[in-house]
Amino acid sequence: MSSPSPELKLSAYANRLPGSPVREILSVSQQPGMISFAGGLPDASVMPEMPELGDLTSIKQYGTSDGEALVKQELVKWLGGEGLTCTEDQILITSGSQQGLDLAARILVDAGTQVVVEDPTYLAMLQVLRGLGADLLPFDLGENGVDLESLEKQLKDNNPRMVYLIPTFQNPTGYSYTEAERIAVAELIDRYDVTLIEDDPYRVLNYDNAFTRPICSYLKKATWMYMGSFSKMLWPGLRTGYVVSHPDLYPWILRAKQATDLHSNRLGQKIIGDFLAAGSLPAHVERLQNHYRIKRDLMQKLLKEYLPASVKWKLPAGGMFFWLELETDTREVLPKGIEAKVVPLPGTPFEVEKSAGKALRLSFSQMTPEDMEEGLKRLAKVLETL
Amino acid sequence: MSSPSPELKLSAYANRLPGSPVREILSVSQQPGMISFAGGLPDASVMPEMPELGDLTSIKQYGTSDGEALVKQELVKWLGGEGLTCTEDQILITSGSQQGLDLAARILVDAGTQVVVEDPTYLAMLQVLRGLGADLLPFDLGENGVDLESLEKQLKDNNPRMVYLIPTFQNPTGYSYTEAERIAVAELIDRYDVTLIEDDPYRVLNYDNAFTRPICSYLKKATWMYMGSFSKMLWPGLRTGYVVSHPDLYPWILRAKQATDLHSNRLGQKIIGDFLAAGSLPAHVERLQNHYRIKRDLMQKLLKEYLPASVKWKLPAGGMFFWLELETDTREVLPKGIEAKVVPLPGTPFEVEKSAGKALRLSFSQMTPEDMEEGLKRLAKVLETL
Repeated sequence: MSSPSPELKLSAYANRLPGSPVREILSVSQQPGMISFAGGLPDASVMPEMPELGDLTSIKQYGTSDGEALVKQELVKWLGGEGLTCTEDQILITSGSQQGLDLAARILVDAGTQVVVEDPTYLAMLQVLRGLGADLLPFDLGENGVDLESLEKQLKDNNPRMVYLIPTFQNPTGYSYTEAERIAVAELIDRYDVTLIEDDPYRVLNYDNAFTRPICSYLKKATWMYMGSFSKMLWPGLRTGYVVSHPDLYPWILRAKQATDLHSNRLGQKIIGDFLAAGSLPAHVERLQNHYRIKRDLMQKLLKEYLPASVKWKLPAGGMFFWLELETDTREVLPKGIEAKVVPLPGTPFEVEKSAGKALRLSFSQMTPEDMEEGLKRLAKVLETL
Repeated sequence: MSSPSPELKLSAYANRLPGSPVREILSVSQQPGMISFAGGLPDASVMPEMPELGDLTSIKQYGTSDGEALVKQELVKWLGGEGLTCTEDQILITSGSQQGLDLAARILVDAGTQVVVEDPTYLAMLQVLRGLGADLLPFDLGENGVDLESLEKQLKDNNPRMVYLIPTFQNPTGYSYTEAERIAVAELIDRYDVTLIEDDPYRVLNYDNAFTRPICSYLKKATWMYMGSFSKMLWPGLRTGYVVSHPDLYPWILRAKQATDLHSNRLGQKIIGDFLAAGSLPAHVERLQNHYRIKRDLMQKLLKEYLPASVKWKLPAGGMFFWLELETDTREVLPKGIEAKVVPLPGTPFEVEKSAGKALRLSFSQMTPEDMEEGLKRLAKVLETL
């Protein structure tokens, strides 16, 4: 596997990245009776005892680049139930889903590589893509949902290598693709044979039973990578996420992972693996949904109550954000808000091309009811002065 | 800070990487009385309880990209005692020191960028540099130590942006730069004004009181980044390392860290921070040294006893490896060793240019005395057949 198959489109970085002969040697070292001088591992017998957390002996030592078997096994089961059939061999555990995005972009994108993105889209992925010098081809994600015509036009008129989508409770808009849109988008991606990067951190924060089957699961021809996260579901401080990859791309993202940080921290993987294996997730997800739904509904009520009638938004069916579209430029909102002790997030950093500068993203996830009401009152006053 | 100062030499990647307006907004959000809709954080009140490990409430949530204050404070104290005076503002906590190497290379190296390296050197850094398309300029690290003439020739005859060194218990050779060599190398790096990347994971594994003051600490003019690890000192499974950076380079490596994986896992940082703050390190380091020294000494004795007289090596003053130089090609040693149930690591993947193919790296860190003796007997037999 020293060079990719010719039909696989990879960046110069991925093409150049040499494989490690040590991996093969280490696996040989595991054979029974083998005495190995090959590895560069410290001696576990002199590592300090770990704090109480069940038995952590097994995770003191270096781990594998692909990730802990338990988490992968549990993910295969859970993702199957979510509509994404996959095997453990397709899963890579990452240091949060941000690392999945970065690794995917690194193996696909060179300076000048065309990448189709929603407009607006996740700002930290814009950072990654711009860092690599990608040529961004935006299509509209507006009040009528996915603009399929504009998406197809970008695919047809150009030669993109990658499409980056957040189809479920999108950040920043909160929009969730309908079933028909998912099918139509998958057909386009197959037809134009471009790699889909599907970013899906908000999946479980589903308040209205929205349709969430991953678009990757519909693809018949195109390659894809699906990015998931435990940060919105469990503990972000553990920095544990995952990538499910089309088999053709898997060896390349695994190699990039290995060169980047060897493997993800094992304690986080153990805690999460144990949590999933204990069957604790379904009840927890229900608790999350009930908790956040109340906040979302209150936010909706208070927005209607306090904000000027000219401000437009759609109720998000999941996620953490309301996306407000104003008639006026929002550049002034932040400094004036700060003066009034309220901080909205102007939409500009999420915008690719339209740069309308007329949107605000409001998060409700951490708000107390009292702060939410007081904050929206203050914001309303600021908006009145524009 | 949207573009680097003109005298700072950075890769196109670093130059293009846009800053995040959200960081500034979030820090404003911390001001007393401020109500923020800005952040995209989940609600800590509905995160599941963490397992017993003291009070982990404070580390459930997302953390900062630079790292936990406690670890940074403790590192400043400890590194000061090791001869590297620095401040917390210069420290970035990474997902193992491999990530530090990758981030440093990403912000410095474009395709074609000249990088001076020891020959042989750490294979995973060769992977990183080759992945980026660096033009490698090796200098000899041989039986007489640092070849200063060959190092100066590379600096003088070319235009390198970076020098990558492992001056203390080098991987793979086990060589440790003398005080005079450290001073001479620092003078050369200052004179030719090239950025030094000093990789130092084995520092505490010092068995003979070797001189280990970091070369970075001698620099007067050149910029530098110093890479440290807790993997050889505490638990590698936590994937926690650090970079200490010259102030001019710090904002760029921090920005790359943020785009790459947001921040390092907090549980590992907490465990390590608590361990250091409790004052547990000095006694533990002494235990490590005593434990590994016995293994190294036994290895030395057994190598003399069993290996052919034609095999040459130097006793390493620290680290985990013996580097054996043979008179014959070692390409055959691995397959023949595997047949004989012994696995040495051929030196070739560490070699940059000389590709002598006549070296083996042997690790003693995990060996039992019985396995060490039996393994060296087997290896000796294999070597006799060459």
